[in-house]
Amino acid sequence: MKTLTIRSRQRDDFVVITDQVVQIVQSSGVGDGLCTVFVPHTTAGITINENADPSVVHDLVLQLETFVPWRHPDMRHQEGNSAAHLKASLFGSSLTVPIQDGHLVLGVWQGIYLCDFDGPRSRTVHVQVVSTDTIPEKEEAQS
Amino acid sequence: MKTLTIRSRQRDDFVVITDQVVQIVQSSGVGDGLCTVFVPHTTAGITINENADPSVVHDLVLQLETFVPWRHPDMRHQEGNSAAHLKASLFGSSLTVPIQDGHLVLGVWQGIYLCDFDGPRSRTVHVQVVSTDTIPEKEEAQS
Amino acid sequence: MKTLTIRSRQRDDFVVITDQVVQIVQSSGVGDGLCTVFVPHTTAGITINENADPSVVHDLVLQLETFVPWRHPDMRHQEGNSAAHLKASLFGSSLTVPIQDGHLVLGVWQGIYLCDFDGPRSRTVHVQVVSTDTIPEKEEAQS
Repeated sequence: MKTLTIRSRQRDDFVVITDQVVQIVQSSGVGDGLCTVFVPHTTAGITINENADPSVVHDLVLQLETFVPWRHPDMRHQEGNSAAHLKASLFGSSLTVPIQDGHLVLGVWQGIYLCDFDGPRSRTVHVQVVSTDTIPEKEEAQS
Repeated sequence: MKTLTIRSRQRDDFVVITDQVVQIVQSSGVGDGLCTVFVPHTTAGITINENADPSVVHDLVLQLETFVPWRHPDMRHQEGNSAAHLKASLFGSSLTVPIQDGHLVLGVWQGIYLCDFDGPRSRTVHVQVVSTDTIPEKEEAQS
Repeated sequence: MKTLTIRSRQRDDFVVITDQVVQIVQSSGVGDGLCTVFVPHTTAGITINENADPSVVHDLVLQLETFVPWRHPDMRHQEGNSAAHLKASLFGSSLTVPIQDGHLVLGVWQGIYLCDFDGPRSRTVHVQVVSTDTIPEKEEAQS
């Protein structure tokens, strides 16, 4: 397993981590398998969305705020960041992407984002790779 | 890894793909393991929900639209489909189902759905299977 | 794969299952790998969120209800629990946590919750563990 450290710059901040995850998959030497990306925080999530036009992320943050506003009069959590906790559960803490021929099978428009909902902070992302190749190949066993 | 091609018929369309995924798991010959279903798109998602009464999907689409309406005056993305991007992140791009004794452990009411939020289109779904059987069994090693 | 039986106590009930999942991972003997937690229901989900202050869960349930209210005049599903189905898809049926050195890499504030959105009921949770160790180590092969 490899761990990334990511810095967010504002309260709601989607930080692209695609290149770092791709790098970990390539370094693993796994040909076919699964790559899980996991965020060990409760006010940040992980998602895949468009990596081309930054206005998509702007609109995601904007529209999410319309139904998960920062404040609600009946909230009890003293830290006052319950909305960030809810956004984290809505986006999720983990995602899993197949690996084929040594590459993540991301779509052409897809990027992997750490989603901070209570930044700016330093955040951690864990990346774990498992292989489908359960039976060692002969050339590996002999080397 | 296997890849499915799925055609959606309208803007918001939930297409059942359970049988195709079950088929891939059975063909893989894996006894115990994990099956990841992944959508390489940014305006479509993947989910598990009721497969019996079609009115459930009707109600999901209806209620989702109440808080993620298609238009918002401050959206910037030129394509005008930002709501579909948000729905994709809320539902997620991947899900992982355990395999036991060669079968997906889906509940009796569960079906796997490709969720198009910006159809109609032709969509792709990747299905990857990994096994828990990491140590080759003797009969396999000898064959 | 191991299966837990969990009892919820009210309609919206988040039940902590972290200890049971940790136990399964430790019993598996897997050093490095992935742990998938899966809910085979369509009106319950699975999530990771704060395990320290119970007011966080209170606020999650409260704010979720503001945009996914129990009733909508145009709902068709006869059982009347369509909102629970939508919440299940928003939170998701599966999550996957990396295992390193025999331990789930949960963050210090993270707990794993079964989220019942249509309780009280008895619910099932499946836990599957896979290892990254695809080539048997010598000391294991010899024992």
